[in-house]
Amino acid sequence: MGYYSTPLDQEKVIRDPVLSHVYIQDQIIMDLINTTEFQRLRRIHQLGTTSQTFPGAEHTRFTHSLGVYEIVRRICNQFQRNYPSKTPGDGLWDDSERIVAECAGLLHDIGHGAYSHTFEHIFHTNHEQITQAIITNPETEVNQVLSKVGPDFPNRVASVINKTYDNQQVVQMISSQCDADRMDYLLRDSYFTGAQYGKFDLDRILQVMRPYKDGICFKMSGLHAIEYYIVSRFQMYLQVYFHPTSRSIEVILAHLLLRAKELAETTDGLEHFNPTLLMPFLEGTFNPETDLKDYLRLDDGVLNTYFSTWRDAPDKILADLADRFVNRKPFKSAIYTDKTKDLLPELSKLIEDAGFNPEYYTATDNSYNQPYDVYDPKSEHHNAQIELMQKDGSLVELSQASLLVRTITGKDVGDSRFFFPKEMLQTDDNVELFKPIYDNFQRYIKNDTIIDPKEN
Amino acid sequence: MGYYSTPLDQEKVIRDPVLSHVYIQDQIIMDLINTTEFQRLRRIHQLGTTSQTFPGAEHTRFTHSLGVYEIVRRICNQFQRNYPSKTPGDGLWDDSERIVAECAGLLHDIGHGAYSHTFEHIFHTNHEQITQAIITNPETEVNQVLSKVGPDFPNRVASVINKTYDNQQVVQMISSQCDADRMDYLLRDSYFTGAQYGKFDLDRILQVMRPYKDGICFKMSGLHAIEYYIVSRFQMYLQVYFHPTSRSIEVILAHLLLRAKELAETTDGLEHFNPTLLMPFLEGTFNPETDLKDYLRLDDGVLNTYFSTWRDAPDKILADLADRFVNRKPFKSAIYTDKTKDLLPELSKLIEDAGFNPEYYTATDNSYNQPYDVYDPKSEHHNAQIELMQKDGSLVELSQASLLVRTITGKDVGDSRFFFPKEMLQTDDNVELFKPIYDNFQRYIKNDTIIDPKEN
Amino acid sequence: MGYYSTPLDQEKVIRDPVLSHVYIQDQIIMDLINTTEFQRLRRIHQLGTTSQTFPGAEHTRFTHSLGVYEIVRRICNQFQRNYPSKTPGDGLWDDSERIVAECAGLLHDIGHGAYSHTFEHIFHTNHEQITQAIITNPETEVNQVLSKVGPDFPNRVASVINKTYDNQQVVQMISSQCDADRMDYLLRDSYFTGAQYGKFDLDRILQVMRPYKDGICFKMSGLHAIEYYIVSRFQMYLQVYFHPTSRSIEVILAHLLLRAKELAETTDGLEHFNPTLLMPFLEGTFNPETDLKDYLRLDDGVLNTYFSTWRDAPDKILADLADRFVNRKPFKSAIYTDKTKDLLPELSKLIEDAGFNPEYYTATDNSYNQPYDVYDPKSEHHNAQIELMQKDGSLVELSQASLLVRTITGKDVGDSRFFFPKEMLQTDDNVELFKPIYDNFQRYIKNDTIIDPKEN
Amino acid sequence: MGYYSTPLDQEKVIRDPVLSHVYIQDQIIMDLINTTEFQRLRRIHQLGTTSQTFPGAEHTRFTHSLGVYEIVRRICNQFQRNYPSKTPGDGLWDDSERIVAECAGLLHDIGHGAYSHTFEHIFHTNHEQITQAIITNPETEVNQVLSKVGPDFPNRVASVINKTYDNQQVVQMISSQCDADRMDYLLRDSYFTGAQYGKFDLDRILQVMRPYKDGICFKMSGLHAIEYYIVSRFQMYLQVYFHPTSRSIEVILAHLLLRAKELAETTDGLEHFNPTLLMPFLEGTFNPETDLKDYLRLDDGVLNTYFSTWRDAPDKILADLADRFVNRKPFKSAIYTDKTKDLLPELSKLIEDAGFNPEYYTATDNSYNQPYDVYDPKSEHHNAQIELMQKDGSLVELSQASLLVRTITGKDVGDSRFFFPKEMLQTDDNVELFKPIYDNFQRYIKNDTIIDPKEN
Repeated sequence: MGYYSTPLDQEKVIRDPVLSHVYIQDQIIMDLINTTEFQRLRRIHQLGTTSQTFPGAEHTRFTHSLGVYEIVRRICNQFQRNYPSKTPGDGLWDDSERIVAECAGLLHDIGHGAYSHTFEHIFHTNHEQITQAIITNPETEVNQVLSKVGPDFPNRVASVINKTYDNQQVVQMISSQCDADRMDYLLRDSYFTGAQYGKFDLDRILQVMRPYKDGICFKMSGLHAIEYYIVSRFQMYLQVYFHPTSRSIEVILAHLLLRAKELAETTDGLEHFNPTLLMPFLEGTFNPETDLKDYLRLDDGVLNTYFSTWRDAPDKILADLADRFVNRKPFKSAIYTDKTKDLLPELSKLIEDAGFNPEYYTATDNSYNQPYDVYDPKSEHHNAQIELMQKDGSLVELSQASLLVRTITGKDVGDSRFFFPKEMLQTDDNVELFKPIYDNFQRYIKNDTIIDPKEN
Repeated sequence: MGYYSTPLDQEKVIRDPVLSHVYIQDQIIMDLINTTEFQRLRRIHQLGTTSQTFPGAEHTRFTHSLGVYEIVRRICNQFQRNYPSKTPGDGLWDDSERIVAECAGLLHDIGHGAYSHTFEHIFHTNHEQITQAIITNPETEVNQVLSKVGPDFPNRVASVINKTYDNQQVVQMISSQCDADRMDYLLRDSYFTGAQYGKFDLDRILQVMRPYKDGICFKMSGLHAIEYYIVSRFQMYLQVYFHPTSRSIEVILAHLLLRAKELAETTDGLEHFNPTLLMPFLEGTFNPETDLKDYLRLDDGVLNTYFSTWRDAPDKILADLADRFVNRKPFKSAIYTDKTKDLLPELSKLIEDAGFNPEYYTATDNSYNQPYDVYDPKSEHHNAQIELMQKDGSLVELSQASLLVRTITGKDVGDSRFFFPKEMLQTDDNVELFKPIYDNFQRYIKNDTIIDPKEN
Repeated sequence: MGYYSTPLDQEKVIRDPVLSHVYIQDQIIMDLINTTEFQRLRRIHQLGTTSQTFPGAEHTRFTHSLGVYEIVRRICNQFQRNYPSKTPGDGLWDDSERIVAECAGLLHDIGHGAYSHTFEHIFHTNHEQITQAIITNPETEVNQVLSKVGPDFPNRVASVINKTYDNQQVVQMISSQCDADRMDYLLRDSYFTGAQYGKFDLDRILQVMRPYKDGICFKMSGLHAIEYYIVSRFQMYLQVYFHPTSRSIEVILAHLLLRAKELAETTDGLEHFNPTLLMPFLEGTFNPETDLKDYLRLDDGVLNTYFSTWRDAPDKILADLADRFVNRKPFKSAIYTDKTKDLLPELSKLIEDAGFNPEYYTATDNSYNQPYDVYDPKSEHHNAQIELMQKDGSLVELSQASLLVRTITGKDVGDSRFFFPKEMLQTDDNVELFKPIYDNFQRYIKNDTIIDPKEN
Repeated sequence: MGYYSTPLDQEKVIRDPVLSHVYIQDQIIMDLINTTEFQRLRRIHQLGTTSQTFPGAEHTRFTHSLGVYEIVRRICNQFQRNYPSKTPGDGLWDDSERIVAECAGLLHDIGHGAYSHTFEHIFHTNHEQITQAIITNPETEVNQVLSKVGPDFPNRVASVINKTYDNQQVVQMISSQCDADRMDYLLRDSYFTGAQYGKFDLDRILQVMRPYKDGICFKMSGLHAIEYYIVSRFQMYLQVYFHPTSRSIEVILAHLLLRAKELAETTDGLEHFNPTLLMPFLEGTFNPETDLKDYLRLDDGVLNTYFSTWRDAPDKILADLADRFVNRKPFKSAIYTDKTKDLLPELSKLIEDAGFNPEYYTATDNSYNQPYDVYDPKSEHHNAQIELMQKDGSLVELSQASLLVRTITGKDVGDSRFFFPKEMLQTDDNVELFKPIYDNFQRYIKNDTIIDPKEN
């Protein structure tokens, strides 16, 4: 099979603080890591604005991608050791699927760009679509490496990532409710944030995982390890991913990009603060097929360099938002509910009276997530549910076996917040001019929650 | 004392994966962290090119600086609890020195720039001089915050950092052979590289540390903890800081900057690849007093953005070195000794024959360090030696009490390496053209060491 | 105040793998640790039979007791730093309560004996009653040390432990749903079993804990840390404390003691296998007031020595159960429900047919626990519920603030199991004699659960 | 091959806090663990008296033995994956040696008894001899299990342990300067003491280990990992194994056993404090071949039960030493040198004047160890030196490649101490009677070292 199965003369070992070591055993994996598209992931932070709240979280998509590859590799090893397929269709593991699985694990995030979450929201790009493009476009180094295996190999890898590949075991290794991607990012985000949560027992989960005819399931003896993983993931959402300060920085970033877009649409908008690589996005002309090369240059450092420059822009709003983003001056926020939602216009009015354009200086954000999700035939999108295999080979869906998981299944967890400039909370007597406005505003906030001052 | 001693209404707690939590208790510390000069440290990696070898090492000088502050804070707490000064000159701890110590700890690296080590080497800048400038220049936000304490306070903080402050206890907290700076970076670099080394017992060392009239010493009962710290540091040098691959990437970076400098000195050198913020350095006009503002914009992201652009430069050498740096294509290296040093010209000649300009494609690097250093009256530069206090109050210098430390005291540890393009090690038969040159070259290398092929 | 407040000349530091170090700062604490009653805790394992399932769990009540003391000490430190009482009744922390709290933390388990759980169940002793006796009986060294503070001091310490002390802050440090006792044992049991669960964020919880007029509460900002602690505790119950193998060993121990008791009641029952120190219990004459000295000699080593000897006893059942206990030959078990409960007599009959006395060779055990409990005015026994303090000082009960906790509040979690000899599961063809009985028995068990063979 | 190679139906997994999990894959290993001789190791502490200094160190030889087995298993796996023998004598790994290696790893300490170090010293027993006896004596369960493989199999296992087995790879896995035994105990002792030292990088060492024709060596790329292991081991000796307090408790134990022996030799010596199982040792009649069964009953719990009883013995010295041992009342100690050795009689005289029998209340102890040892043809006993393999296959002895190791090679490290009752250090004025003696004694001790008062 030539290149496809060429092992390295000598296994390469990469030290990784989360998984201890990453083992590179095949030439194709080494070559993929050395592509310019993959090396670029070193310049894309994994958690975007989160390092403004948890300063340790400076890790990148590069190490995460290596981690997903490594976990896939360990899963394949275990499957091959304990569940090798004897005859096609026996529902066990066919180790000739290993390379496609490992490549898909390594490349699953290759299309991510700087501050993806916010960037995609504002510019209507889609990192999954770009991932597919990078893998299948013959101009990328990634495609050229994959094509050495065979002309159809890039498409096979791409189809694993977009879940249309026919071997569900391979698909579920990369994409399911307990897959290599999620397991790596939970452990990694936990390690780098120092969050103490998310430290589930990877070794144990890898041990109880097994292939079966419809994909991947877990031995019943691993019930508690899976349960703990679900709860850890839930905690990471509540404490890290939904942290109000990170969401506040994201709000500022979104408004900064919006302002730049608006200015770019007017004559002389950004003048010499012209961000060349951003222009296709600001002007709405980006095409993922033809503009891939430019997109791949747009890393965190490039965006931050633009933002840094914009601090001196003549447009006051652009300059101020850039300063707030670059120098970490987050908005404050308060929780609102359906009941207090109607008070937001009153609050926005006060913010405007204090001299802030509400379009750029207020925002609402709802962050909700379902810690675990069972199959719902009526739902359009759904995740593969987690199945446990009993001693006699029959399957039980996780929430049926775990009281703890059952109680949180399908529940939306999170909160809705209203963001506003920190200035509104000033209490100094020497802010004479706006003091009555500030005082009035503060009547609406109690215990970080919006209240109706007339009722309290 | 006003501002100086204003505690925050509510202690701020920053999660840190290395020290668990950093506690901010004074308004002045909060305000310093919020300055633009300090926030900029988020964009300067702590270990420069090391993350190309240990990919987890993506931490920045921001978190390190918080860590040094936190360790200083803990030392002050312990000193105040156990050794509070009763009368001036009693050699115990005067807690009114706490704020100056904490500020100095926080700001000790404020002058660092992108890839400092290499950058300073090529452009003859000095981060220590710039640190002093940032603290004392009235135009910086840092200076403005410090000046609220009193007009002389910035100078006091600066003098702690440059070791001229009169209280040696404060100076040695920040600068000595077992100071808050070293302790934090060892633990932090160990954590993020995943190196397993460098994990000495911080709690124990902080416990046995004590003030005395000439500075800081350690209780004899802490001998082994200090010994282990010295050995851990030694191991980190050998395994992480002197890693050949990182040094190789640094060589490429140095040559890349040199090439840019040379091109900048000729007409139209860099054309539209013009790196505005680098120009004062490329042209040799940088003045730390007047050009501070520009220097402070030159972070890792800005430099990387330039390098990324240079990959398309018309100058082949600039473009190739930029590609090697950005896409991680390290040089290979071999150890040489005084005995084999004379063979290097022969090797360089072969490299030139294979088509590489030896000025840019070869280098030598000697990395040596003394794991521990005792006072030598004849030496110009020396570190304060580590003193242990016995039960009766008398002092013993560390290497007198520890056989292990004694054996490594004053010894230069490290190696000398010759760097060259990986291409020289090719063994493929299909590189016909240069095959004889490559073969010849490879006769000089055995077990990663340069040998004389005539003698072997 | 003399002895009461005598600090040690030099703080003693005990290395502890769980809490890093335990600090002894007062003479009274040092003296209590050195009493014969406290040193005896070195010979009582913390988790009884659990080390038969998790072999690392060989830790004793000695280290746990030191750990509880240390956590109490840290709580007092934090309270004194941040919430020192200014005027009596202000609901803040009065540091003159520190010593009574520390002593109570240290001594809270002083009455525990070997394999307490089972021992108490069989012999109707009560370690809490014995704890009170040890503290208040003038013949113990513990009482003699405490009495140096004042004649009423032993009673004060005892009243903290039995929750009648008037300062609820002190009581809740030792006994509440998030107290020093629970926090230490979760961390410690997790560390020694290696269970990966139970590793909540102690530092953070200690940080958000605060005194208030009715006891101890937690700042709302600590909600997620508390939530995680509750979930960790829940996981430890499910995975460690309720582990079927440990419960099976406990069943064997209980039956072994029962058999000995029965034999002791008949003439010549135990002959020369006479376990002197056990006799008052076997014969039912034990009185905690007068027989304290003997009770205090009855540690794990003594009991194990008896059991070891009994392996050679003439009574076959005693000898066999002793062998099963000493040489770890656990019973097997299967889950039963209300629905399958009625099948147990049939199973017992089969076990009897196979030659085992069902009285000693079968058992049922129901292990259930409520992970969190809110105050119920109708319930006789209840724990103090966990209260969170909002920014404005108002309190919210934990399950009101946490969806996760709310879903598990008041739920009984655990299972009911039927225990039987492993022999019943044999499938070898060469056990001809009982093969039909074994086969029949096995029809009742599927996926470790009892089923009705007629329905399956 | 029948029993020899019968894998278990389902791999058994034992949770271990140090190695995460121990995997049992063969019926023979499971059967050996279930023998009464192996289960007995649960009742023998790994570190004897060390838990009196580091209270967490309550782990037993049972978990250590499992750990050694597991490390051997991992070594075999790696060898079989990377260095499988193709032809006999090729110096690579022959996996048919795996079972004998795993059995030897599991059983290497099977002969250890309670407080072996001291016990052997006093009673002239030898745990290595007893290990051989247990493995080869047909009356043990261990022998019966091993014999199922073949009549010679017990002897093969025994010969690995006593280093006469012909495959040096197998021998060196169990016994060399970097073997599974040492690696497990360093990690384990470090984990349970909480000592922070000894945490070398096991994964890395297992990775760089390889078989060669004369045994086991390490790839040169693992130099630093090995270096760190040597230094960690060195630190564990200095800080844990040679800790003065543990040695002091051992002194008390030795004197206690000596006193019992002396009393046993006189009529009615121990009266009803008669320690049945100890009698063969006290009376000097023990024969390891015939008395094996009794020896195997003599675990820590049995000895401690005797000591506990002896606290009430009529012999004052026996009772006092038993009390000091059981209730942890260590002797104090001071360092002496060749120069101050001659002062010890003067000190002993003062101790006698204060009312203590010097034979039982003083002792000297010299604890020295060589952190690393190279082969010395003149020496009778020596360890296999550690060899590193270079890329070209040539070997370099460790101390030649490592400056750090070279500096400590062959050096005796440790100290000589004189032990005496703590009472001699009293300074209270109310000890009137002996005050002059105590004062005089204290003139000889300064900074925990014996000095000549006439010279100071």
